[in-house]
Formats: sequence, structure tokens, C-alpha cells
Amino acid sequence: MGVLLVVIDGLSDRPVNGKTPLSVARKPNLDRLAEMGINGIMDTIAPGIRPGSDTSHLALLGYDPYRYYSGRGPIEAAGVGIDVKPGDVAFRANFATVEGEGRLFDKTVVDRRAGRIEDTSALIKAIREKVKLPVSFFVERGTGHRAAVVFRGEGLSDRVSDTDPKAVGKKVKLCTPLDKDEKARKMAEIVNEFMQQVHEILDNHPLNKERAERGLPVANALLLRGAGEMPHIPKFEEKTGLKLCVIAATALIKGVGKIVGADVITPEGATGNKNTNLDSKISAALMALESYDVVLLHIKAPDELGHDGDFEGKKAFIEKLDAKIAPLLELDFNKNCLIVTADHSTPVRVRDHTADPVPVVIVHEDVRKDEVKTFSEFEAYKGGLCRIKGIDLLNIALDLLNISEKFGA
Amino acid sequence: MGVLLVVIDGLSDRPVNGKTPLSVARKPNLDRLAEMGINGIMDTIAPGIRPGSDTSHLALLGYDPYRYYSGRGPIEAAGVGIDVKPGDVAFRANFATVEGEGRLFDKTVVDRRAGRIEDTSALIKAIREKVKLPVSFFVERGTGHRAAVVFRGEGLSDRVSDTDPKAVGKKVKLCTPLDKDEKARKMAEIVNEFMQQVHEILDNHPLNKERAERGLPVANALLLRGAGEMPHIPKFEEKTGLKLCVIAATALIKGVGKIVGADVITPEGATGNKNTNLDSKISAALMALESYDVVLLHIKAPDELGHDGDFEGKKAFIEKLDAKIAPLLELDFNKNCLIVTADHSTPVRVRDHTADPVPVVIVHEDVRKDEVKTFSEFEAYKGGLCRIKGIDLLNIALDLLNISEKFGA
Repeated sequence: MGVLLVVIDGLSDRPVNGKTPLSVARKPNLDRLAEMGINGIMDTIAPGIRPGSDTSHLALLGYDPYRYYSGRGPIEAAGVGIDVKPGDVAFRANFATVEGEGRLFDKTVVDRRAGRIEDTSALIKAIREKVKLPVSFFVERGTGHRAAVVFRGEGLSDRVSDTDPKAVGKKVKLCTPLDKDEKARKMAEIVNEFMQQVHEILDNHPLNKERAERGLPVANALLLRGAGEMPHIPKFEEKTGLKLCVIAATALIKGVGKIVGADVITPEGATGNKNTNLDSKISAALMALESYDVVLLHIKAPDELGHDGDFEGKKAFIEKLDAKIAPLLELDFNKNCLIVTADHSTPVRVRDHTADPVPVVIVHEDVRKDEVKTFSEFEAYKGGLCRIKGIDLLNIALDLLNISEKFGA
Repeated sequence: MGVLLVVIDGLSDRPVNGKTPLSVARKPNLDRLAEMGINGIMDTIAPGIRPGSDTSHLALLGYDPYRYYSGRGPIEAAGVGIDVKPGDVAFRANFATVEGEGRLFDKTVVDRRAGRIEDTSALIKAIREKVKLPVSFFVERGTGHRAAVVFRGEGLSDRVSDTDPKAVGKKVKLCTPLDKDEKARKMAEIVNEFMQQVHEILDNHPLNKERAERGLPVANALLLRGAGEMPHIPKFEEKTGLKLCVIAATALIKGVGKIVGADVITPEGATGNKNTNLDSKISAALMALESYDVVLLHIKAPDELGHDGDFEGKKAFIEKLDAKIAPLLELDFNKNCLIVTADHSTPVRVRDHTADPVPVVIVHEDVRKDEVKTFSEFEAYKGGLCRIKGIDLLNIALDLLNISEKFGA
């Protein structure tokens, strides 16, 4: 028994001629859930605050993002599998192609993705073995040209600039301290030393010689951005006494799960895009619900389709998803609490996240059912939850299951 | 393009035989806006907290009044045109008539408004020229007998008592420190010295001799009240990157605009009462919207009529206002966001501000329209905004215009 929290990324929208993908999609199962449950709208962070998927997921798991969010670096690093610890400084990284003479910082970036290189395992291995720094470091590949780098040691700081110039034709940037303190100075020095050593190792690596011979761009530099210091964040189980499982394919969401101490599962065929294996994800969620108290199931595609401005695609995916969630309606709602919601709106006309509140439905035998019978932006606000905040959602569900502590006597 | 925020002071009410001035007024334009937009109710500060017009306007502009409000003094002083700086200690003041022998503080107040004296310019000029203090001071006239006084220097404090006894027949009060620290002691000493010198200057002023000859009460003392230290308050443009214009005739609202760094406009004929030139104010607002990102248009009269307990007068003014706002319905709502709301309720039966939430409507092409078709206390809560807080309102509007920052990734 437990809480199954289904977060459909970027699901909700703004009206286009009075309609949204969600409002016009044929979705009998989602509508049936609206009818079975208690409905409302939700500001995942606060009214008018445009959420990221990372900050909103922190809030949905009960963590105040204003207190615990320190940028994307640590979350991405955790998401690709690095065991990031409080005080570590983490960066997002990408393998790139640089050309020119002299030191790395005299050279020019000619491809920020090194020809969309796919397998960087050998390069990662060489970096791990050969780079020598006065502090510990961890490097892990992400998908394609992506990677994450984490530095660990006394007196480091995330107050340093990016080395990624974020455009081709520009020189690799020196990392500079953004604060005047010794920690930022030391961190910048270490980053620059790391950058230079990595470049020398990669430039002479057999994989790159082979790529050059095949006429492919060499992956001879690692560009760093988005420094963030891992915050002291209490583990979910310590905080609540409950076991949390996050089912996701997207590194950012996996990272949120990791940093709060969840078990993170990426089922077979889960891809984080519209071709993901939904059966596999839903089966995994139902199975997890047997051994965890809280299961967060993340579905990424509607956000991507919102970013693409694809009204019809978003509608079609919602219809496909609706058919796949049929098994969720068969849960024992005496023992389980099912929540379906989104982490933010990604309107197709905006092609980015907005602060428009998301619809939310909570299904459990004991909820005070309301008169809402349709799961959409135009109906949810009429429900019995009225307008709630993301950080309160899980508490509401745990209370329904009678497993939360009383505050007071 | 931008946000036009129309704040109708004290607009909403409590029911009298089931009706409010707003609910029974004939107001086709306000009702049309309700139909075009998304509606809700709003607690400008928080549920159950009775707002002042100053604290509520701070909140509506995105400033937490619990953090940035330090009393009416600095706001009134800014409103009458003194360039109040952080750390300054400001007082509201009124010219009064005192009688008796000895020092000022042995004398009795016989008229707190000095016969409702109208032009105090000559008196203000004399005070500025002749008072000598160990710190800087600024004095400016308000309307009628009103004025503001600001002290500037090292180590001052607003923890001092009023010198205004707030009743006739009582002696002028000595200013006393409310804290035991040196700053409060010093401030009280300076205030008392200022009071005494002002009295001596005014008592011998030609204008007062002339008033005495004409049988009018002399304005021979300046009574101080409502000490407040000007807080460190970030300018609106620094905080948001946006340009703010406040259109108001009331000193308190002009003061709120000034302390947050807005450009403040008082159009020709705008008076802050029921005879104000509404055409002139609405034209000014529409013009301002062409060069500012956010325009706050303040309409004072319904609050005055609420304080007067005048149900019919309040209703009649709402009807007059409704006719005048017709041009606002013609705004391009693809580019502009129009908000109509109040800063608090001023029920005619209470004759003072109450915490009853205010109706709010937001009109923009992209809002999720709801089913509300009437702008009133009895319909607004059924709308798609549900119940929001004043401090969130502007964020919601800026998100609709897609000009806010994303929090996270």
C-alpha cells in the first residue's frame, strides 16, 4: 500500500481558441479518475512562479526548492549516477571539438557536441585514470556527448564561471571566481587545471585518432557549465520514515530522486520521449507500489511536445497515455492513494514552462468526492481541493493513508 | 505592452440585506471584463488580516509588507515629495493651535488642525530656514493642515513616541524613547528640540499674527506622529527589470510608488475623492501603458464612501466609474494584461477596512476563461483563480506576458 504519484511533465496548457491538448483529448480513464477523486489546481512552486522540472519535483516530494535547490549541476550529476555528497561542487559537461595552437584556453570550439559522439566510455575511463588534481573528482557519461563532473574536497565553491562559451567559433573560456573569497579562487584554479589535463589526455587518445582518420570531429575537450554545490538535503526516508521509489528515464528527474535518497528505476524501454514504453513504466510503478510507500512515476513526453509547439502531438500522446493507465483504475483505493498531476504547464504556444497552475486529482476511497468529471485545466479548479501548492500535495496523500504524525495533542 | 493594474480602493463590501454596493450597481463594463477574464478572490495580505492601503499596495506590487513596511511616516513623507532615504526617520505632522504659558510642552492643544488652515507654504519656508538641529531635516506640506517631517543623520531611531496628544484640551506630549538604546534617546531629544524651535518660529510668524487679527486659529505648533524608519527597499526596476508607473492623487499611494522607485503621475483633475476626473486618470493610464511595463491606476473614492457608510453613494460612484472604464475593454489583450481589483474591503456598515477578500479579474488573451460573468463579491470566488494572495498577483500577470524568469531547469 502507498501513494502512487503520476507526474506528467508539462501536461497542462494555455487555451488556443479556447481549447488545450488535454481538454480536447479523448481520455476516458483520466476523466474517470477525476470522477472518482477529489480535484483541484496546483501551483507546484507558488502562483506566478515559472517552475523548472527539477524545482517542481523537489516541491512535489516535499522539499522547499528555495531551501534545497542550488542549480542543475548536482541534480544532473546524481542523475547520471555519481554519488554526490553535501559540499561537492558539480558541473554539467559536454564533450566538444576544439582547434588551434597552444594551451586549451587559446583554442576555439568548433563543435560543442563533438559530432554528437555516442559512446564516450573510453574517454571517461582515460580521464578517471590519468587526471591528477589536489582534490578528488568524479566524472560520468550522460547520454550522447553529455557528461557530469563533480569535485570533492575541503574549501570548494560553486561561485565560479562556466568554461563552455556556449557558441561555436569562440575560445574555451577560463573559469573565473565569481566571489572574492579563497574558495572560489581555488575552485576556478582546479577547474582550469582539470580542463587542461583532460584536453591533453583526450587529444592523444586512440579513440580520437581513430575518429580523425574516419573524418569525424574529435572529442578533445570537456566543457563545463552550471556549477552547483550539493546542498545538505535530508533523505526522504529519514525525513518521513517512508520508502520512496522514483521511476524515470530523464536524467534530471532521476537526479532529483537520487539526491533525496530514493531508489531510482528506469524500466526496460523507458526513454523519456514520446516513444517510451509506457506499459513497462506502468508495470514497474505497480510493482514498486508493493514494496515502497511512495512511488513517483514520471512521464516526460508531453513537456517535449509542448516545447516543440506540437498541439496535435501532445493531444495524441495524452490519448495514448490514457489508454495505458487503465490498470491504475484497478488499484485497491482502500489501501492506495493515486495522484495524477503535472510538474508545470508547457503551453504549445509558449514552447516553454509557464506558471499556469496544473490540474491535480487525488483518488482514494476516503476522499471527499466533488462534482468534477473531466480531467482538464477548465474543470479542475471547480473541485474540492480548490488551489493548493506542490509542497503540500504529498502531505495530503499521507494523511489520507493515516500514516502521518499529528502536530500537537 | 504591459500590465495595467486598476486598484479600486475599498471597493468590496459585506452584505447589507444580502446586497453590496458592487453587487447591485449597474456595471456592464466590469461585468464584461469578468466574462472576458479569469476571476477569483484575493487576500491582499493574508486571510483575516485587515489591510491598510499602504501595506496592501506594497503587497500588490510584490513587496512583502511584513518585511518592508515600517509605518505610515516614510510613505506619507515620500508621498508629499520628500526624497526619503534608507535610515531616515519620518513622521506625519499636522499644524495645530496651542495655548498657554511657558515651554511648548506646558501648552494645551485647542485645535488639532489650526482651523483647517489651507496654505502653509510660508510656515514651511520659515521652519526650513530657521530651525537649527545637529542632524539634517526635511519638512514638506501635505494637503490642508497636513505635513511630513524627516530627520536624517547617524544613529537615529523610530522607536519614539508621538508628540500629538490626538485630542483637544490635552497638553502637547514630550517625545519619549520607546527603547532603552542611545539611538531612541537621541531621536527623542532631537524631536523635542525641533518641536520647541518650530513653536517659537511659528508663534512669531507674520502669517499667524494676521490670522489672529482675522479671528482665525493660529498654526503655532507642528504635532508629530507615526515615526517610521525608511527601510532598505529594492527598487521595482532593480528587482524585476521592469518599469513601473503609479497613477494616483492620494499621498499615501503616491508614497508607496515613490519608495519602490516608480514614476508617480497625478493627472490634471485627479483629486483622490468622488469628484476626481476619471477621464483624465484613465487617459493617463492608457498613455503610461505605452512606455511602462507595469501601470498601477489607483481610484480612491469607494474607500471614502465606505468610511462614510454611504451605500448609495458607493453604488453610484461604481456606476460612474464603470462607464468611464469603457476604453479599457478596447486594449489589445494579446499584448496587454488588465487586472481590476481592490486593495481591501471597506464595508459601509463597518466604516473601516476589513479583511474580507476582494474580487479580482485578470484579462489577457491566454487566460483560462471561467464561467464567471459578473464582477462582484458573490461571484468572483467561483472563478478559475480560486483564492490568491496579493503578493502573487503581479507574478501571475508577468507570467502571462511571458516575461518572468524560470526557477530551475
